[in-house]
This record gives sequence, C-alpha cells and structure tokens, in this order.
Amino acid sequence: MSIYVFFEPNPLQQSYLREEDSFHATRVLRVKAGDLIHLLDGKGKKFEAKITQVDAKKTQFDQVQLIHQTEKPPFQIHLYLAPTKQMERMEWMVEKCTEFGIHSIHFFHSRYSERKEIKLQRLEKTAIAALKQSKNLFLPQFHEISSLTDIMKKNQVKLTGSQYMFAHIAEPADPVLGKLVKLGEEYHVLVGPEGDFSSEESNQLIAQDWLPFSLGKSILRTETAGIAITHAIHVLHEIQA
Amino acid sequence: MSIYVFFEPNPLQQSYLREEDSFHATRVLRVKAGDLIHLLDGKGKKFEAKITQVDAKKTQFDQVQLIHQTEKPPFQIHLYLAPTKQMERMEWMVEKCTEFGIHSIHFFHSRYSERKEIKLQRLEKTAIAALKQSKNLFLPQFHEISSLTDIMKKNQVKLTGSQYMFAHIAEPADPVLGKLVKLGEEYHVLVGPEGDFSSEESNQLIAQDWLPFSLGKSILRTETAGIAITHAIHVLHEIQA
Repeated sequence: MSIYVFFEPNPLQQSYLREEDSFHATRVLRVKAGDLIHLLDGKGKKFEAKITQVDAKKTQFDQVQLIHQTEKPPFQIHLYLAPTKQMERMEWMVEKCTEFGIHSIHFFHSRYSERKEIKLQRLEKTAIAALKQSKNLFLPQFHEISSLTDIMKKNQVKLTGSQYMFAHIAEPADPVLGKLVKLGEEYHVLVGPEGDFSSEESNQLIAQDWLPFSLGKSILRTETAGIAITHAIHVLHEIQA
Repeated sequence: MSIYVFFEPNPLQQSYLREEDSFHATRVLRVKAGDLIHLLDGKGKKFEAKITQVDAKKTQFDQVQLIHQTEKPPFQIHLYLAPTKQMERMEWMVEKCTEFGIHSIHFFHSRYSERKEIKLQRLEKTAIAALKQSKNLFLPQFHEISSLTDIMKKNQVKLTGSQYMFAHIAEPADPVLGKLVKLGEEYHVLVGPEGDFSSEESNQLIAQDWLPFSLGKSILRTETAGIAITHAIHVLHEIQA
C-alpha cells in the first residue's frame, strides 16, 4: 500500500489536515484511524504522522516525525511575469515550473498587459498538487500582482551572486538566455506581456541593469517563456554539475 | 493591418483555403476579395496570395508566391511517447513542442501504458495553431500509435549522426540528458508511460543500444518530460552555436 501525501506548512504545530485535504482523505482516499500518512511542508521537509480521528472537515493526526529533509536547492529562480488572459495557461505554467523546481513566481501589470489581477489561491492549489506528484519538496511562493515599476524598485540594489534579466524581442536579437546565465545562486527573470514591454519599459530595465536576452527565433507564448526559462536554468546547472 | 496567416501544405497546387480556414477567414476574420494573406506549408516556406472569392466553405486565392524560406533546422528531434490518459495533456505538450521546434511525434503503447489509441487530428490542429502563433515554420509530423516493439524494430539500424535515448527512472540514476546529448543531426527519444517501462522493456532497449538517461530528481509527468527533452536539446544547441 502506498502512503498518501498531504500538504501542511507547519506539521509540528498542527494536529489536523487542512479542510480540503480532510475531505479528500476521508471521502476519496478513505483513510482510517491508525493509517500512516506523509506530510510535506513545501520547504524541503517530509514528515510521517498517524491518523487519529477521521472527519471530512478536520481529520486529526499525531506522532509527527521528520523522516526526510532535502537541502536547500543550490540556486533559486524568481520568475516575474505579466499574466496571460487565460488563467488556465498560468496554471499549466505553475504546474510545470513546480515540477522542475522554482522558488517564487511574481506577477505584474505593465503597459501592454492583458490582465490586471490574478487569483493566487488557484495557482497555489495547482502547485501543491504538482509538488505531491513530482516528489519535489519545495513549494513556490506566490506574490500578489504589482506594477513593473514596483518590481524594479524592489530590485534596485543588485545583489552579488544574483542575476537580473528580462526576455526581450529585439532586432538584432540579444544573446540567448543560455549564453547569459552565469552559474550563481539567484536568478530574477522578467517576462513581458504578449504585446511585449513598451520601448520605454525596456529602456528603463536596461538603465537599471536588467540584462536583455532572447528566447530564440520562435515567438513563445508567455507561459511557454516561463517554462523555458525555468527549465533552461536547470539544464545549465545540470550539465555543469 | 496585419496579414492573416493560414496553413496549406501545398500552396502552389491549391487554389482555395481548407474548409475550416475558409469558415474562420470569412466569418471571424472577415477577409474580402482582394485581401493579401500568408500561407504556411509547414515545411519551412511562407507564401503570399490574394483572395479572389470569399466563401465559408471554399475561399479562393491566386497569385501565390514564395516570400520566405527557412533553411532546414540544423537538427531534428523525434519524440516517442506513451500517451497520457488525459488527451488535454498531450495537446499542451504538442503546443509547447511546436513552439520550440520538433520534427516528429510518435506514440506507442507498452506494458504499463494508459491509453491505446490517440486522435492525431486534434493534435495536428493544435500544432497548426502553434505554428501560426510562434512564427516557427516547421510543422511536426504525427505518427499513428504503434507498439514499443515496432518502434524498436524500425530503429534497429542505428544511423551515424543520430542518437537513440530513453528516459529511465533507475537507482543509481543514469546520466542526465544534458550530459548525454552529443551535438548531432537527429535525436530519437523515448518517454515511457506514467508507470514507466517494465524492466523487461528497459533491458530490451538497452540491449538494442538505446541509451538510458535521467530526467533529474523530480518525477516529471509524461507531457512535462516531452517538453523538457525537446527544450533541453534546443538549449544545448543554442549555447554551442
């Protein structure tokens, strides 16, 4: 019998499953008192616990113990993007990026962006499902939508060991991401809206030391760009490992 | 005004748009006689033509002339996979792989595969849409589902300049794809079903000189594996270009 896995950010301070998990555990998986379960905290740790009481809203557990701990990943990817009109495309991207491994996803609105608000809860749910499925132990952090200007402000001081880059459609083309990435610890990468950054926005980014890069000859959709960037950074680290 | 793009595999032998395009052109885009359009043949060529007669089933054009030709890509990716239960996941993968660029997609059923048939028409439609959107000029070829044994038979003779590889979950892990790929002309890559290849299948593949590789520490979904493989080969070529 395989052990069911649930998400719980603070297993040691908690004694029952989250409401949606309680429902799923009792009505779908039919867990019983005495069953062992696994709990992921989304921060690299896996716990074992024992179900003590089954309830569709508040299924209780105890005897929580740490059984596995993954070291902090050697690098962190922070993706910033202007969300697509279709929410579904963002959900797919979150699923794929979580499978590959990503530290945080931020959204912004800019001159030509199509969507000014985004429901983070749905995205987090997608990420939790991907986490359980992929055996990846780090849940991405999601940040409320803000403006491109705010993101530039927050990253005004450029840290050593960090790279600041943005996807840019230009003629002649900028270097591809793979040639720009230096192996480091943190990557902050911006993807513009389907209508791209305005030239004013691009100029501001360049003035503030964000490096432009090309995503190659194809015009990638926003969510494809997010997947490609996340995956490329992983590939570049793997071949050097 | 931007020029509308349609797909037509043989523009020089043809004088009207495909039925679905005729409908879309007249009812949605409202093209008119005299309008210029672009036609993609999916084999690297782009043509210009002039609409002569508008009809929801058979919109006619003439004055077809070649306006752009892309050279054959320097490498070709042939992806072979056991389709997922949810057809939607295959459609997403086809969209993303077409955006990145892929030569052919083949499906097979094996010991633990979840789906024994697949509708290629829907996938081709997805690929055509991705082609128009991405400005990529090569449409992937789709092949009817066959057995893993058939695929091994067809690729029994291993060609120079081609690499034959398969995604494999093993302990200890095989080398990652990025370390295995040699820059070449053709890549034949197999992805197993969610339940992976049976050990008998893996052993047969190894015996027939298919090289096993690891997709990293995460357990990737089938469609994520297809996207990751296609993209990794592109990244590896880009950084050496």
